[in-house]
Amino acid sequence: MKITTLAGGVGAARFLEGLVQAVRQEDITVISNIGDDEEFFGLHVSPDIDIVIYTLAGAVDAAQGWGLTGETYHALDALKRFGYETWFNLGDMDMATHAHRTQMLRAGATISDATRSIAEAFGLRLTLLPVSDDRIRTIVRTPDGELPFQEYFVKRRTADDVLSVRFDGIEAAKPAPGVLEAIASADIVAVAPSNPIVSIGPVIGVAGVREALRSTPATVVGVSPIIGGKTVKGPADRMMASLGMTPSAAGVAEAYADFLDVLVIDDEDRALAGAVEAAGVRCIVAPTLMTGPAEKLALAETVLGAVQ
Amino acid sequence: MKITTLAGGVGAARFLEGLVQAVRQEDITVISNIGDDEEFFGLHVSPDIDIVIYTLAGAVDAAQGWGLTGETYHALDALKRFGYETWFNLGDMDMATHAHRTQMLRAGATISDATRSIAEAFGLRLTLLPVSDDRIRTIVRTPDGELPFQEYFVKRRTADDVLSVRFDGIEAAKPAPGVLEAIASADIVAVAPSNPIVSIGPVIGVAGVREALRSTPATVVGVSPIIGGKTVKGPADRMMASLGMTPSAAGVAEAYADFLDVLVIDDEDRALAGAVEAAGVRCIVAPTLMTGPAEKLALAETVLGAVQ
Repeated sequence: MKITTLAGGVGAARFLEGLVQAVRQEDITVISNIGDDEEFFGLHVSPDIDIVIYTLAGAVDAAQGWGLTGETYHALDALKRFGYETWFNLGDMDMATHAHRTQMLRAGATISDATRSIAEAFGLRLTLLPVSDDRIRTIVRTPDGELPFQEYFVKRRTADDVLSVRFDGIEAAKPAPGVLEAIASADIVAVAPSNPIVSIGPVIGVAGVREALRSTPATVVGVSPIIGGKTVKGPADRMMASLGMTPSAAGVAEAYADFLDVLVIDDEDRALAGAVEAAGVRCIVAPTLMTGPAEKLALAETVLGAVQ
Repeated sequence: MKITTLAGGVGAARFLEGLVQAVRQEDITVISNIGDDEEFFGLHVSPDIDIVIYTLAGAVDAAQGWGLTGETYHALDALKRFGYETWFNLGDMDMATHAHRTQMLRAGATISDATRSIAEAFGLRLTLLPVSDDRIRTIVRTPDGELPFQEYFVKRRTADDVLSVRFDGIEAAKPAPGVLEAIASADIVAVAPSNPIVSIGPVIGVAGVREALRSTPATVVGVSPIIGGKTVKGPADRMMASLGMTPSAAGVAEAYADFLDVLVIDDEDRALAGAVEAAGVRCIVAPTLMTGPAEKLALAETVLGAVQ
């Protein structure tokens, strides 16, 4: 069984931790958001790609959910001397990843090439693809003006109201090699419990991706990142509300309704099953909180079991 | 009194430690070798410039004579994962310097601009100039073929016989802004006790520099890096011998004879004073071993006292 996962951020990384317990990595393709990529100190950082790699390599700092375990920040501290803002916590070991990626990109490699190189170096056996090799940049409009995503997300800790979101460059972005094929040829396409707007949004916004999701013979199964009207982590609930969406599992079903076959919602949201089905999406009610390895595996099995 | 120093490497940094005790930093201009600049992991490293900055900032690792005190190597260790050779010891804090320099260069700044920015960030008040803003690359020919300087110097620990040395790009290199002026307008030009071939060679090889040294009204004073036929540090003695030069203070006088007014040689080489004078260079015999702050200051005062 071939599984393709649309991914962005911590929720996706945790979902994939369960999936790799359930199936062979060789049968998994991950299509990652790159809209929150940013350049810091001349280094190209791909947070959503790296969080998947570090997590599946068992190298992630489990307490904070990102970065490398045992990380130090000596280079970052030293950069302060040169007047740089250092609110983006780049660790010393992490910086090696970004230096490698940056050097490959400067030498003419694509983000796909760099991603493959890093994933292989960390021992991953699944296929990890950026949604595009072209630059996509998520920009969040707030009452204070437009902010690059990381400035909104990390520097300002998602404190601002989000008035609108745009993905700079997405109109011209082509899907990376393998992206449309991985959707078309999968048995299941899983939409990870990630922020529908800023994590999954830049993935399904690339030309051809949404159409591929609609037309694939695969069962397209989402997991709601909203439980009881709240996100486990991150600003998806507030962002959905401020952008006029319903911040609930039902709102997620509506956002994905044109391509989603099944949505897995949490037991706590059992009452929303009808609203999900009303959006034309089959609803599975199951535990979705990924508190430990067993819960992650169970959620993966729920998703895999959604194929009829 | 304005002092301009031609510099390259550890010997120059130690000489400058004495000079800054004797005169105001504002009266000193340092013209640095850049022939051993190298790119590692996409970062532009300028070893001879950084050693001056780190040393005068009191930040250098005194035991090894290069790098930063209290340095860690976590990023370098992490780079091994990606298959990089890591024989060039780039520390985490040091990497911040190189990231900053690289980012400035990529944004269109010159090596002069980057050098000034880094020197200021470390609190230096002297003027530190790269000899050129153009790329010069020291290449050492050995029985095993040509090697970039750092590969000869660091990776292979100067073990190879040196058959010839060339400075790739030097024919086209223009002196950086201020270089010729600093030589022409100085009261003293000091040639630091650095390797005459690979440290001072790429400085005086840039178009116009040697002519400026010949024509300046300043007293041009060298300090022999060779004591008793040996260098304190580095391969200058063996390199001079294999290239057909006399590996002694007299050989240094001969190499610089066309522009040098005075050479300071060590007490131990008193017997060579005649040979130095025979090369047309006035000889001062004095202690030159820079074992501590007092000895460094004494050597600086010897050089400053050479003006007649």
